[in-house]
Amino acid sequence: MFHYTTIATLLALMFYFYTSVQVARARMLYGVKAPAISGHPDFERVFRVQANTLEWLPIFLPSLWLFAYYLSDAFAAAAGAVWIIGRILYMLGYAEAPEKRGLGFAVQMVATAFLWGGSVYGVVHQMLGA
Amino acid sequence: MFHYTTIATLLALMFYFYTSVQVARARMLYGVKAPAISGHPDFERVFRVQANTLEWLPIFLPSLWLFAYYLSDAFAAAAGAVWIIGRILYMLGYAEAPEKRGLGFAVQMVATAFLWGGSVYGVVHQMLGA
Amino acid sequence: MFHYTTIATLLALMFYFYTSVQVARARMLYGVKAPAISGHPDFERVFRVQANTLEWLPIFLPSLWLFAYYLSDAFAAAAGAVWIIGRILYMLGYAEAPEKRGLGFAVQMVATAFLWGGSVYGVVHQMLGA
Repeated sequence: MFHYTTIATLLALMFYFYTSVQVARARMLYGVKAPAISGHPDFERVFRVQANTLEWLPIFLPSLWLFAYYLSDAFAAAAGAVWIIGRILYMLGYAEAPEKRGLGFAVQMVATAFLWGGSVYGVVHQMLGA
Repeated sequence: MFHYTTIATLLALMFYFYTSVQVARARMLYGVKAPAISGHPDFERVFRVQANTLEWLPIFLPSLWLFAYYLSDAFAAAAGAVWIIGRILYMLGYAEAPEKRGLGFAVQMVATAFLWGGSVYGVVHQMLGA
Repeated sequence: MFHYTTIATLLALMFYFYTSVQVARARMLYGVKAPAISGHPDFERVFRVQANTLEWLPIFLPSLWLFAYYLSDAFAAAAGAVWIIGRILYMLGYAEAPEKRGLGFAVQMVATAFLWGGSVYGVVHQMLGA
Protein backbone atom coordinates (compact mmCIF):
# COMPACT_ATOMS: atom_id res chain seq x y z
CA MET A 1 0.00 0.00 0.00
CA PHE A 2 1.55 3.28 -1.16
CA HIS A 3 -1.26 5.71 -0.39
CA TYR A 4 0.93 8.75 0.25
CA THR A 5 2.97 8.18 -2.89
CA THR A 6 -0.28 7.81 -4.82
CA ILE A 7 -1.49 11.18 -3.51
CA ALA A 8 1.85 12.86 -4.35
CA THR A 9 1.61 11.38 -7.87
CA LEU A 10 -1.95 12.57 -8.44
CA LEU A 11 -1.06 16.09 -7.19
CA ALA A 12 2.02 16.21 -9.44
CA LEU A 13 -0.14 15.20 -12.42
CA MET A 14 -2.70 17.88 -11.54
CA PHE A 15 0.03 20.51 -11.45
CA TYR A 16 1.42 19.28 -14.77
CA PHE A 17 -2.06 19.48 -16.30
CA TYR A 18 -2.26 23.06 -15.04
CA THR A 19 0.95 23.96 -16.93
CA SER A 20 -0.64 22.68 -20.14
CA VAL A 21 -3.78 24.75 -19.51
CA GLN A 22 -1.46 27.75 -19.21
CA VAL A 23 -0.05 26.95 -22.66
CA ALA A 24 -3.57 26.93 -24.14
CA ARG A 25 -4.26 30.31 -22.49
CA ALA A 26 -0.94 31.73 -23.72
CA ARG A 27 -1.76 30.62 -27.27
CA MET A 28 -4.84 32.85 -27.21
CA LEU A 29 -3.26 35.69 -25.24
CA TYR A 30 -0.23 36.06 -27.50
CA GLY A 31 -1.83 34.95 -30.75
CA VAL A 32 0.36 31.89 -31.33
CA LYS A 33 -1.88 29.58 -33.31
CA ALA A 34 -1.46 25.79 -33.35
CA PRO A 35 0.60 24.01 -34.63
CA ALA A 36 3.23 26.77 -34.06
CA ILE A 37 5.17 26.50 -30.79
CA SER A 38 7.16 29.70 -31.18
CA GLY A 39 6.62 33.28 -32.32
CA HIS A 40 6.33 35.27 -29.09
CA PRO A 41 8.85 35.11 -26.19
CA ASP A 42 6.11 35.31 -23.53
CA PHE A 43 4.38 32.31 -25.09
CA GLU A 44 7.65 30.42 -25.44
CA ARG A 45 8.44 30.73 -21.73
CA VAL A 46 5.01 29.38 -20.77
CA PHE A 47 5.46 26.60 -23.32
CA ARG A 48 8.87 25.70 -21.92
CA VAL A 49 7.44 25.47 -18.37
CA GLN A 50 5.11 22.70 -19.55
CA ALA A 51 7.80 21.10 -21.73
CA ASN A 52 10.39 21.08 -18.95
CA THR A 53 7.90 19.61 -16.48
CA LEU A 54 7.13 16.91 -19.05
CA GLU A 55 10.86 16.32 -19.52
CA TRP A 56 11.31 15.64 -15.81
CA LEU A 57 8.22 13.49 -15.18
CA PRO A 58 9.83 10.29 -16.57
CA ILE A 59 12.75 10.71 -14.14
CA PHE A 60 10.62 11.86 -11.22
CA LEU A 61 7.75 9.36 -11.29
CA PRO A 62 9.76 6.12 -11.62
CA SER A 63 12.29 7.32 -9.00
CA LEU A 64 9.41 8.27 -6.69
CA TRP A 65 7.82 4.83 -6.91
CA LEU A 66 11.04 2.85 -6.67
CA PHE A 67 11.95 4.87 -3.57
CA ALA A 68 8.51 4.17 -2.11
CA TYR A 69 8.85 0.46 -2.82
CA TYR A 70 12.41 -0.02 -1.57
CA LEU A 71 12.51 2.48 1.28
CA SER A 72 9.45 4.40 2.44
CA ASP A 73 6.02 5.50 1.24
CA ALA A 74 5.96 8.55 3.54
CA PHE A 75 9.45 9.83 2.68
CA ALA A 76 8.80 9.31 -1.03
CA ALA A 77 5.63 11.39 -0.75
CA ALA A 78 7.45 14.09 1.22
CA ALA A 79 10.14 14.36 -1.47
CA GLY A 80 7.35 14.37 -4.05
CA ALA A 81 5.80 17.36 -2.28
CA VAL A 82 9.16 19.15 -2.41
CA TRP A 83 9.35 18.37 -6.13
CA ILE A 84 5.92 19.95 -6.71
CA ILE A 85 6.94 23.05 -4.71
CA GLY A 86 10.11 23.34 -6.81
CA ARG A 87 8.04 23.01 -9.97
CA ILE A 88 5.68 25.78 -8.83
CA LEU A 89 8.64 28.08 -8.05
CA TYR A 90 10.11 27.23 -11.48
CA MET A 91 6.82 28.16 -13.18
CA LEU A 92 6.45 31.43 -11.28
CA GLY A 93 10.10 32.39 -11.84
CA TYR A 94 10.12 31.52 -15.54
CA ALA A 95 6.91 33.54 -16.05
CA GLU A 96 8.90 36.64 -15.04
CA ALA A 97 12.22 35.96 -16.77
CA PRO A 98 14.36 33.00 -17.93
CA GLU A 99 17.03 33.96 -15.34
CA LYS A 100 14.54 33.50 -12.50
CA ARG A 101 13.87 29.84 -13.17
CA GLY A 102 17.05 28.66 -11.42
CA LEU A 103 15.83 28.33 -7.81
CA GLY A 104 12.75 26.25 -8.57
CA PHE A 105 14.76 24.12 -10.99
CA ALA A 106 17.36 23.40 -8.29
CA VAL A 107 14.69 22.48 -5.71
CA GLN A 108 12.97 19.95 -7.97
CA MET A 109 16.35 18.55 -9.09
CA VAL A 110 17.49 17.97 -5.50
CA ALA A 111 14.17 16.23 -4.73
CA THR A 112 14.58 14.02 -7.81
CA ALA A 113 18.24 13.25 -6.99
CA PHE A 114 17.17 12.26 -3.46
CA LEU A 115 14.54 9.89 -4.86
CA TRP A 116 16.86 8.45 -7.52
CA GLY A 117 19.78 8.03 -5.11
CA GLY A 118 17.55 6.50 -2.47
CA SER A 119 16.27 3.99 -5.03
CA VAL A 120 19.83 3.02 -5.97
CA TYR A 121 20.66 2.56 -2.29
CA GLY A 122 17.45 0.61 -1.68
CA VAL A 123 17.84 -1.89 -4.51
CA VAL A 124 21.55 -2.49 -3.87
CA HIS A 125 20.89 -2.90 -0.14
CA GLN A 126 18.17 -5.49 -0.78
CA MET A 127 20.23 -7.40 -3.34
CA LEU A 128 23.23 -7.63 -1.02
CA GLY A 129 20.99 -8.60 1.89
CA ALA A 130 19.27 -11.39 -0.05
CA MET B 1 -3.61 -9.23 -11.94
CA PHE B 2 -4.39 -6.33 -14.24
CA HIS B 3 -4.58 -8.07 -17.59
CA TYR B 4 -7.11 -5.72 -19.20
CA THR B 5 -5.21 -2.63 -18.10
CA THR B 6 -2.05 -4.21 -19.48
CA ILE B 7 -3.71 -4.72 -22.85
CA ALA B 8 -5.05 -1.14 -22.90
CA THR B 9 -1.53 0.11 -22.07
CA LEU B 10 0.12 -1.92 -24.82
CA LEU B 11 -2.47 -0.73 -27.38
CA ALA B 12 -2.00 2.90 -26.31
CA LEU B 13 1.77 2.53 -26.74
CA MET B 14 1.28 0.98 -30.18
CA PHE B 15 -0.87 3.91 -31.23
CA TYR B 16 1.68 6.37 -29.86
CA PHE B 17 4.42 4.59 -31.79
CA TYR B 18 2.27 4.96 -34.91
CA THR B 19 2.12 8.75 -34.43
CA SER B 20 5.93 8.86 -34.37
CA VAL B 21 6.11 6.79 -37.57
CA GLN B 22 3.83 9.42 -39.13
CA VAL B 23 6.35 12.11 -38.13
CA ALA B 24 9.15 10.21 -39.88
CA ARG B 25 6.96 9.92 -42.99
CA ALA B 26 6.02 13.61 -42.85
CA ARG B 27 9.73 14.54 -42.64
CA MET B 28 10.30 12.90 -46.02
CA LEU B 29 7.01 14.00 -47.57
CA TYR B 30 7.42 17.69 -46.75
CA GLY B 31 11.23 17.85 -46.85
CA VAL B 32 11.73 18.83 -43.21
CA LYS B 33 15.14 17.40 -42.40
CA ALA B 34 16.24 16.48 -38.87
CA PRO B 35 16.99 18.13 -36.50
CA ALA B 36 14.43 20.78 -37.66
CA ILE B 37 10.93 20.41 -36.18
CA SER B 38 9.31 23.23 -38.13
CA GLY B 39 9.32 24.63 -41.66
CA HIS B 40 6.08 23.32 -43.19
CA PRO B 41 2.62 23.61 -41.58
CA ASP B 42 1.56 20.14 -42.74
CA PHE B 43 4.62 18.65 -41.08
CA GLU B 44 4.08 20.70 -37.93
CA ARG B 45 0.54 19.40 -37.45
CA VAL B 46 1.71 15.79 -37.74
CA PHE B 47 4.58 16.58 -35.35
CA ARG B 48 2.18 18.14 -32.84
CA VAL B 49 -0.07 15.04 -32.91
CA GLN B 50 2.87 12.96 -31.67
CA ALA B 51 4.04 15.68 -29.25
CA ASN B 52 0.58 16.15 -27.75
CA THR B 53 0.11 12.39 -27.34
CA LEU B 54 3.49 12.29 -25.59
CA GLU B 55 2.42 15.22 -23.40
CA TRP B 56 -0.64 13.31 -22.21
CA LEU B 57 0.93 9.87 -21.68
CA PRO B 58 2.42 10.79 -18.26
CA ILE B 59 -1.04 11.85 -17.03
CA PHE B 60 -2.91 9.02 -18.71
CA LEU B 61 -0.74 6.00 -17.84
CA PRO B 62 -0.28 6.64 -14.07
CA SER B 63 -3.98 7.55 -13.70
CA LEU B 64 -4.95 4.41 -15.62
CA TRP B 65 -2.91 2.14 -13.34
CA LEU B 66 -3.88 3.83 -10.08
CA PHE B 67 -7.54 3.53 -11.12
CA ALA B 68 -7.00 -0.16 -11.92
CA TYR B 69 -5.31 -0.76 -8.58
CA TYR B 70 -7.76 1.14 -6.39
CA LEU B 71 -11.02 0.52 -8.25
CA SER B 72 -11.27 -1.82 -11.21
CA ASP B 73 -9.11 -3.43 -13.89
CA ALA B 74 -12.00 -3.71 -16.36
CA PHE B 75 -13.27 -0.13 -15.97
CA ALA B 76 -9.72 1.21 -16.21
CA ALA B 77 -9.23 -0.67 -19.46
CA ALA B 78 -12.59 0.56 -20.81
CA ALA B 79 -11.62 4.18 -20.09
CA GLY B 80 -8.26 3.43 -21.67
CA ALA B 81 -10.03 2.28 -24.82
CA VAL B 82 -12.01 5.55 -24.87
CA TRP B 83 -8.72 7.44 -24.50
CA ILE B 84 -7.25 5.66 -27.52
CA ILE B 85 -10.40 6.41 -29.57
CA GLY B 86 -10.15 10.09 -28.57
CA ARG B 87 -6.48 10.10 -29.59
CA ILE B 88 -7.30 8.60 -33.00
CA LEU B 89 -10.03 11.22 -33.57
CA TYR B 90 -7.55 13.93 -32.52
CA MET B 91 -4.99 12.64 -35.04
CA LEU B 92 -7.49 12.41 -37.89
CA GLY B 93 -8.96 15.84 -37.11
CA TYR B 94 -5.60 17.60 -36.73
CA ALA B 95 -4.42 16.08 -40.04
CA GLU B 96 -7.17 18.09 -41.74
CA ALA B 97 -6.98 21.38 -39.81
CA PRO B 98 -5.99 22.65 -36.33
CA GLU B 99 -9.63 23.61 -35.66
CA LYS B 100 -10.74 20.00 -36.12
CA ARG B 101 -8.67 18.60 -33.25
CA GLY B 102 -11.16 19.71 -30.57
CA LEU B 103 -13.50 16.70 -30.47
CA GLY B 104 -10.83 14.05 -30.12
CA PHE B 105 -9.00 16.18 -27.59
CA ALA B 106 -12.16 16.47 -25.47
CA VAL B 107 -12.82 12.71 -25.60
CA GLN B 108 -9.31 11.76 -24.40
CA MET B 109 -9.44 14.51 -21.74
CA VAL B 110 -12.74 13.24 -20.32
CA ALA B 111 -11.34 9.68 -20.23
CA THR B 112 -8.21 10.93 -18.42
CA ALA B 113 -10.26 13.03 -15.97
CA PHE B 114 -12.39 9.96 -15.20
CA LEU B 115 -9.27 7.90 -14.47
CA TRP B 116 -7.61 10.65 -12.43
CA GLY B 117 -10.77 11.45 -10.45
CA GLY B 118 -11.48 7.78 -9.84
CA SER B 119 -7.94 7.35 -8.50
CA VAL B 120 -8.40 10.27 -6.10
CA TYR B 121 -11.68 8.76 -4.91
CA GLY B 122 -10.13 5.31 -4.60
CA VAL B 123 -7.11 6.30 -2.53
CA VAL B 124 -9.09 8.61 -0.22
CA HIS B 125 -11.75 5.94 0.23
CA GLN B 126 -9.16 3.32 1.20
CA MET B 127 -7.31 5.65 3.56
CA LEU B 128 -10.49 6.62 5.39
CA GLY B 129 -11.61 3.01 5.53
CA ALA B 130 -8.33 1.76 6.98
CA MET C 1 11.03 -8.63 -6.75
CA PHE C 2 12.33 -7.00 -9.92
CA HIS C 3 15.78 -5.91 -8.83
CA TYR C 4 17.46 -6.20 -12.24
CA THR C 5 14.67 -4.29 -13.97
CA THR C 6 14.94 -1.64 -11.26
CA ILE C 7 18.67 -1.25 -11.93
CA ALA C 8 18.09 -1.05 -15.72
CA THR C 9 15.43 1.61 -15.10
CA LEU C 10 17.67 3.70 -12.84
CA LEU C 11 20.54 3.50 -15.35
CA ALA C 12 18.23 4.50 -18.23
CA LEU C 13 17.04 7.50 -16.21
CA MET C 14 20.64 8.47 -15.43
CA PHE C 15 21.49 8.38 -19.13
CA TYR C 16 18.41 10.42 -19.98
CA PHE C 17 19.39 12.98 -17.35
CA TYR C 18 22.82 13.14 -19.00
CA THR C 19 21.22 14.05 -22.35
CA SER C 20 19.45 16.99 -20.68
CA VAL C 21 22.73 18.16 -19.12
CA GLN C 22 24.16 18.13 -22.65
CA VAL C 23 21.31 20.44 -23.75
CA ALA C 24 22.17 22.91 -20.97
CA ARG C 25 25.83 22.84 -22.06
CA ALA C 26 24.91 23.27 -25.73
CA ARG C 27 22.77 26.30 -24.82
CA MET C 28 25.86 28.04 -23.47
CA LEU C 29 28.26 26.72 -26.11
CA TYR C 30 26.15 27.84 -29.09
CA GLY C 31 24.51 30.87 -27.49
CA VAL C 32 20.93 29.61 -27.71
CA LYS C 33 19.23 31.32 -24.79
CA ALA C 34 16.11 29.94 -23.09
CA PRO C 35 13.24 29.78 -23.97
CA ALA C 36 14.46 29.33 -27.59
CA ILE C 37 14.90 25.71 -28.72
CA SER C 38 16.29 26.48 -32.16
CA GLY C 39 18.77 28.88 -33.77
CA HIS C 40 21.92 26.78 -34.29
CA PRO C 41 22.00 23.34 -35.97
CA ASP C 42 24.60 21.98 -33.53
CA PHE C 43 22.35 22.92 -30.61
CA GLU C 44 19.29 21.50 -32.34
CA ARG C 45 20.88 18.08 -32.78
CA VAL C 46 21.81 17.91 -29.08
CA PHE C 47 18.29 19.07 -28.21
CA ARG C 48 16.75 16.40 -30.42
CA VAL C 49 18.83 13.67 -28.73
CA GLN C 50 17.19 14.55 -25.42
CA ALA C 51 13.77 15.05 -27.01
CA ASN C 52 13.89 11.73 -28.86
CA THR C 53 15.00 9.88 -25.73
CA LEU C 54 12.08 11.49 -23.90
CA GLU C 55 9.74 10.47 -26.73
CA TRP C 56 10.75 6.82 -26.33
CA LEU C 57 10.75 6.58 -22.53
CA PRO C 58 6.93 6.19 -22.27
CA ILE C 59 7.10 3.21 -24.68
CA PHE C 60 10.27 1.73 -23.23
CA LEU C 61 9.58 1.90 -19.48
CA PRO C 62 6.04 0.44 -19.43
CA SER C 63 7.06 -2.30 -21.89
CA LEU C 64 10.14 -3.07 -19.78
CA TRP C 65 8.10 -3.49 -16.60
CA LEU C 66 5.24 -5.45 -18.18
CA PHE C 67 7.82 -7.80 -19.71
CA ALA C 68 9.49 -8.17 -16.30
CA TYR C 69 6.16 -8.90 -14.63
CA TYR C 70 4.80 -11.34 -17.21
CA LEU C 71 7.98 -13.05 -18.35
CA SER C 72 11.34 -12.42 -16.73
CA ASP C 73 13.16 -9.86 -14.60
CA ALA C 74 16.59 -10.82 -15.95
CA PHE C 75 15.63 -10.80 -19.65
CA ALA C 76 13.81 -7.48 -19.23
CA ALA C 77 16.93 -5.97 -17.68
CA ALA C 78 19.12 -7.41 -20.45
CA ALA C 79 16.89 -5.84 -23.13
CA GLY C 80 16.95 -2.64 -21.07
CA ALA C 81 20.75 -2.68 -21.23
CA VAL C 82 20.59 -3.08 -25.02
CA TRP C 83 18.18 -0.12 -25.14
CA ILE C 84 20.65 2.05 -23.21
CA ILE C 85 23.49 1.00 -25.53
CA GLY C 86 21.34 1.88 -28.56
CA ARG C 87 20.54 5.26 -26.99
CA ILE C 88 24.24 5.98 -26.41
CA LEU C 89 25.06 5.08 -30.04
CA TYR C 90 22.19 7.32 -31.17
CA MET C 91 23.58 10.22 -29.12
CA LEU C 92 27.13 9.77 -30.38
CA GLY C 93 26.00 9.37 -33.99
CA TYR C 94 23.60 12.34 -33.94
CA ALA C 95 26.33 14.53 -32.41
CA GLU C 96 28.30 14.04 -35.63
CA ALA C 97 25.52 14.23 -38.24
CA PRO C 98 21.77 13.53 -38.53
CA GLU C 99 22.52 10.71 -40.98
CA LYS C 100 24.58 8.86 -38.38
CA ARG C 101 21.76 8.44 -35.88
CA GLY C 102 20.24 5.44 -37.71
CA LEU C 103 22.19 2.57 -36.14
CA GLY C 104 21.60 3.54 -32.52
CA PHE C 105 17.96 4.28 -33.29
CA ALA C 106 17.51 0.81 -34.78
CA VAL C 107 19.16 -0.90 -31.79
CA GLN C 108 16.94 0.82 -29.22
CA MET C 109 13.86 0.21 -31.39
CA VAL C 110 14.56 -3.53 -31.65
CA ALA C 111 15.05 -3.69 -27.86
CA THR C 112 11.75 -1.85 -27.32
CA ALA C 113 9.91 -4.05 -29.85
CA PHE C 114 11.24 -7.15 -28.06
CA LEU C 115 9.94 -5.83 -24.72
CA TRP C 116 6.59 -4.75 -26.17
CA GLY C 117 6.08 -7.99 -28.12
CA GLY C 118 7.10 -10.07 -25.13
CA SER C 119 4.56 -8.25 -22.97
CA VAL C 120 1.81 -8.92 -25.51
CA TYR C 121 2.79 -12.60 -25.55
CA GLY C 122 2.97 -12.72 -21.76
CA VAL C 123 -0.42 -11.20 -21.02
CA VAL C 124 -2.23 -13.21 -23.73
CA HIS C 125 -0.54 -16.41 -22.54
CA GLN C 126 -1.62 -15.80 -18.94
CA MET C 127 -5.18 -14.88 -19.88
CA LEU C 128 -5.62 -18.00 -22.01
CA GLY C 129 -4.04 -20.13 -19.29
CA ALA C 130 -6.34 -18.82 -16.58
